[in-house]
Amino acid sequence: MSRVVVRGTGLFTPEGGVTNDELVESLTTATLHWNEANAGAIARGELAARDLPSAKFIVRASGVGHRYVIDKQGVLDPTRLRPRIRRRGEEELSLQAEICLSAAREALAQAGRSGDEIDAIVVGCSNLQRPYPAIAIEVQAALGAGGFAFDMNVACSSATFALQNVVDALRGGHARRALVLNPELTSGHTNFELREFHFIFGDACTAIVLEREDEGDEPAVGEAWEILDTRLVTRFSNNIRNDAGFLNPCEEPARAPHELLFRQNGRQVATEVSPMVAEHLRKHLADAGIPIDRVRRLWLHQANLGMNRAIAKTLLGRDALPEEAPVILDEYANTSSAGSVIAFHRHRGGIDVGECAVLCSFGAGYSIGSVLLRKLRA
Amino acid sequence: MSRVVVRGTGLFTPEGGVTNDELVESLTTATLHWNEANAGAIARGELAARDLPSAKFIVRASGVGHRYVIDKQGVLDPTRLRPRIRRRGEEELSLQAEICLSAAREALAQAGRSGDEIDAIVVGCSNLQRPYPAIAIEVQAALGAGGFAFDMNVACSSATFALQNVVDALRGGHARRALVLNPELTSGHTNFELREFHFIFGDACTAIVLEREDEGDEPAVGEAWEILDTRLVTRFSNNIRNDAGFLNPCEEPARAPHELLFRQNGRQVATEVSPMVAEHLRKHLADAGIPIDRVRRLWLHQANLGMNRAIAKTLLGRDALPEEAPVILDEYANTSSAGSVIAFHRHRGGIDVGECAVLCSFGAGYSIGSVLLRKLRA
Repeated sequence: MSRVVVRGTGLFTPEGGVTNDELVESLTTATLHWNEANAGAIARGELAARDLPSAKFIVRASGVGHRYVIDKQGVLDPTRLRPRIRRRGEEELSLQAEICLSAAREALAQAGRSGDEIDAIVVGCSNLQRPYPAIAIEVQAALGAGGFAFDMNVACSSATFALQNVVDALRGGHARRALVLNPELTSGHTNFELREFHFIFGDACTAIVLEREDEGDEPAVGEAWEILDTRLVTRFSNNIRNDAGFLNPCEEPARAPHELLFRQNGRQVATEVSPMVAEHLRKHLADAGIPIDRVRRLWLHQANLGMNRAIAKTLLGRDALPEEAPVILDEYANTSSAGSVIAFHRHRGGIDVGECAVLCSFGAGYSIGSVLLRKLRA
Repeated sequence: MSRVVVRGTGLFTPEGGVTNDELVESLTTATLHWNEANAGAIARGELAARDLPSAKFIVRASGVGHRYVIDKQGVLDPTRLRPRIRRRGEEELSLQAEICLSAAREALAQAGRSGDEIDAIVVGCSNLQRPYPAIAIEVQAALGAGGFAFDMNVACSSATFALQNVVDALRGGHARRALVLNPELTSGHTNFELREFHFIFGDACTAIVLEREDEGDEPAVGEAWEILDTRLVTRFSNNIRNDAGFLNPCEEPARAPHELLFRQNGRQVATEVSPMVAEHLRKHLADAGIPIDRVRRLWLHQANLGMNRAIAKTLLGRDALPEEAPVILDEYANTSSAGSVIAFHRHRGGIDVGECAVLCSFGAGYSIGSVLLRKLRA
């Protein structure tokens, strides 16, 4: 019997920390300017005046207090409201590959592995900076890794979906050691012009090193988390949507700029997805024969504090203690697929060998992915 | 012991057939106009005059004689040279989901299955029309399928890479019946303005129904191809590249339009990739214990006739007979990931139960994927 284990994780955090107050100040300036520039149309009733953003609203609606972005200056410039990214030549590493490498190196160091020991790399994220060659293949070359690499996207669930693919590939004998990478440059698809969307996201990249351990192998020394099972489910919804794609220049009539960025019906998402996630986890754990009171930690997707509280409460039958369902979205905001992995990376102390925990993502699609873990070695 | 089998395939072909002569006529008009409009800069030596396209060159360089495109009128309009695609509302099926459904329905009919019997769908292609919700999830809903769905991309190798993921998911118990879909709207990322690129691609979508058959199951009736093994490999190269992506609006300086479309160093690709593919297949077959003279058919990626002839010749030690390595690129051109699947879909007659064959893709990345098949039932 062989098993698949997580041997290390890594995290890239951009230097540009942005508080809610900084973000609100910038959008307030931009909104006042927009209302003034459109005063005529607003007076004629052709346009609605835009409401001013509020830091109090952000915290109450989401639990987000701060985020990191790849270009603070561009994001906060009220005349720009999006990152400024230097175009790179083909001979340079792409930005997404660069942040993957940063996270990958930390994860490899934790696992005690070098890049050339890796033979499968999957990049999963909500948006890719080019279609080909795949970002994962660029990272593979930069690490000196062998085997194969590819990109995939299922928005916020890209980490757990990539994990299942990699776990299956390891079990199937297609690889021995693998990397799952989640380079989320969400500031590139955030609408910083609208108060209902501007605060939601932050940038980050996570990395996970996975290995297959076969019976009779000399087990690697150091921390290891056995992956007991994975489960994915999807159900279509337009409540989180982004229509930016390669056909845009061919479309007639052309799409409005806001359709080429993230948008959502936030309330409907929270109402519909939270019970789906709780039920998915309840059933996954039940089918694996793991009673909920034996689950030591829930590393949940980090989109909304209210959703995470509701999911944990439905599952546990009571409010979760802070250490049972760690929160990183106060500091990182929603980092799409990286969120639950950041929670795992940062908050996996205090669990004993043999104890179980759950990593779970959910989001656009809708998509839900869960990974059941057991601490194998400390 | 359980095995994974292919039970059916489907193909969507757009109505708009375009001959080389039609394409050359359109680009000739556009090129003469371009040279005239830029006559001053050409005379001053700041720009090079563009050479006129030639149908003879196209056939000699590639073996392509014809292709199908989703919008013939837009592609052939010398003042436009790209498809015109009607923008659809969110309540409508997206274009990529629509062509997926068309191919999927044929594949399901061949397999004798209905959509609600499918519990995993992977869309793999070289370019996606939106990042989220995933196209695969939209198709899942339209088919009434259960389980999970996601999108992935490894350019021309997206079919074989998706196949390995699906085979592993079926073996891993995550699904019972799955669909691999390759909706290639290549005309959306083809540079129809340059003679070295304008003829290369065509549009199509393929579908493959796969099932797990467990020991003790009543086997399904009808054609079945057992998947003996899959193997993927990637090695980074910038020789086929496209830089269109979600960060383009943030990049400074902005990219030139031609960087947001397919481009390649065709000769280098042919020189470098052909021997890699031949060696990959030789080793994959050797490791599986299948002598090359027992392989009844090679369904190769359909990018270039010369490459396919070179690969088959290296493998077989002689020129392949036409029926040994079927060609569809004379009619379809390069349909990216769909190409080898179209060859399989169209040309799998005359193989006896128990005989082996190979499906193989290769392309941007570089990426190579091979699938070893054995005819299980007629």
